[in-house]
Amino acid sequence: MDELKKTVRWGILSTAKIGTKVCRAIRRAAGTEIVSVASRTQERAEAWAKDHDVPRAVGSYQELLDDPSIDAVYIPLPPSMHFEWTIRAAERGKHVLCEKPLARNAAEATQMAAACQQLGVQLMDGVMWVHHDRTAAMRQQLNSGSLGRLRRVTAGFSFNWDEIPAENIRLKPELAGGALGDLGYYCVRAIWWTFGELPERVFATARYFNDVEMNLSALLWFRDGRMASFDCGFDTTYRKWFEIAGTHGSLVCDDFVVPWSEDKARFWLHDEAGKNSEHVTPGCVQEVRMIENFCDAVRSGNLDDRWPADAITTTRICDALAESARSGRVIDVSL
Amino acid sequence: MDELKKTVRWGILSTAKIGTKVCRAIRRAAGTEIVSVASRTQERAEAWAKDHDVPRAVGSYQELLDDPSIDAVYIPLPPSMHFEWTIRAAERGKHVLCEKPLARNAAEATQMAAACQQLGVQLMDGVMWVHHDRTAAMRQQLNSGSLGRLRRVTAGFSFNWDEIPAENIRLKPELAGGALGDLGYYCVRAIWWTFGELPERVFATARYFNDVEMNLSALLWFRDGRMASFDCGFDTTYRKWFEIAGTHGSLVCDDFVVPWSEDKARFWLHDEAGKNSEHVTPGCVQEVRMIENFCDAVRSGNLDDRWPADAITTTRICDALAESARSGRVIDVSL
Repeated sequence: MDELKKTVRWGILSTAKIGTKVCRAIRRAAGTEIVSVASRTQERAEAWAKDHDVPRAVGSYQELLDDPSIDAVYIPLPPSMHFEWTIRAAERGKHVLCEKPLARNAAEATQMAAACQQLGVQLMDGVMWVHHDRTAAMRQQLNSGSLGRLRRVTAGFSFNWDEIPAENIRLKPELAGGALGDLGYYCVRAIWWTFGELPERVFATARYFNDVEMNLSALLWFRDGRMASFDCGFDTTYRKWFEIAGTHGSLVCDDFVVPWSEDKARFWLHDEAGKNSEHVTPGCVQEVRMIENFCDAVRSGNLDDRWPADAITTTRICDALAESARSGRVIDVSL
Repeated sequence: MDELKKTVRWGILSTAKIGTKVCRAIRRAAGTEIVSVASRTQERAEAWAKDHDVPRAVGSYQELLDDPSIDAVYIPLPPSMHFEWTIRAAERGKHVLCEKPLARNAAEATQMAAACQQLGVQLMDGVMWVHHDRTAAMRQQLNSGSLGRLRRVTAGFSFNWDEIPAENIRLKPELAGGALGDLGYYCVRAIWWTFGELPERVFATARYFNDVEMNLSALLWFRDGRMASFDCGFDTTYRKWFEIAGTHGSLVCDDFVVPWSEDKARFWLHDEAGKNSEHVTPGCVQEVRMIENFCDAVRSGNLDDRWPADAITTTRICDALAESARSGRVIDVSL
């Protein structure tokens, strides 16, 4: 069988809510198949399999990994479990698409990436927006020089709970919850995506609940006096924007994490005189594109090192931000 | 003569560039007259008076202040000179509209306000945007509760020099230049305007040229975990926006400092589902409105304490930010 056309057969590790979206995306991507879903109980796995029309349901994650018919797994488990199950999946020869944040810290992320590379499987985190066609269009604008030299990124990603759902996994320290890993991770990725280099130093401040961040605000210093800042939190209206400002213009995207519409995605270029032009990218479902990009790497037989590298860098910056927020100190981010 | 209709007779202290705009505004405001302009040399004053059709020109600031026919002065001198010339003007019974930043520090600003109050003259800083009709419309939105509880302000105000004009007064430490007083002052005012209370603590970081800020980025902590952040600088494209985010919506203004158009001024309300509504305020020239508000206070015979109070608070917050940027420490802002 032609390797480039090989069907990629997926298993889903847990019945988390986000799995529904990714399950649909796997179905919509070309040359894929969903084979099996695993949960901690057979009963829950079967209920989910029935709801999502998945042929097989198993009552343990390991059982799914032991299934030789599966090529790749999607791991939407809580962040605290990403390390163990990514390594175990790699050990069974499964390619791994793992939800964000990739790991509890950069040491874990680095080990996960090393294990995957050694065992010849692809690793990617579940950050969808980087796969959207709009993201490529924005990159083209940044590269074109139309903004001049890039000076600053400002970003915000938040949503609001009127009442704090204390049982939500986002608020469980033992599951590695918190606004930084859940929301800030996207802002950090946007900043890394823009500048393509590590910050020299970072400062962050957070408000905690249950020892995890309810919100966090951050400043990041880059070479040549360039700066970035962002905020994330569970206590402010749903916002998901960034502004990238250069010496001669700025690019604004008001829904970079996930477009308000699947039919079209927009961004704006602003010039120095207040004129702005809207750039529209039609019909792209970013999670489908993510699955396709993942499967392309799997089928090609050549692992794409960029994806785990991006996830490791994002995690490393988040580590420094978390340390700063805890300590109240500016943290050097050394290479 | 009816006090409410009394013509307010203006003198302008210096031939700074911004004076042209304010001169025009004084002319467009009802019940005002420009009587005289002063410069350090008679020659320069006369040239400016001729260009701007001002009847009298004098070769010293004091001479203008000694003119008994003048009711009010506009002071667009460099910030380092605001203290001396505001006090001197008050001593001659002149009402004072003084360019921002009002003073080198809050101690000066407080003394200036006290002197003006004692001598029965109005003091106001030259922050124009707060006088725009749009600002009242935005206030109404904030007060209506449509955004829920206010959680965060993010602001940016910058413009770009491709080559650093080392002789520009904005870069002269002896004239109290720098991006914080020149641009950040507006962002601080917007934050104060939104929350109406002092931050508990602030943190700032700056890049310096000639010992004044080329740019500055700041974080401000408020009661109940509310936050604000802003950036200002001479090294990034012309931007002048803020976003005010509440628990259930946000308000975005992309030209709060001065609307891109005199014909209409806009802001947007964003809800939690990505819908936004544009709110348009027609024809308002904010500097004319500023002069009118100033003259109303002068004519009423009742000094409006709010204007000097706003300027003092803005300066106090700027002081803390400057200290933080210099020291690298988080600064408590005590009452």
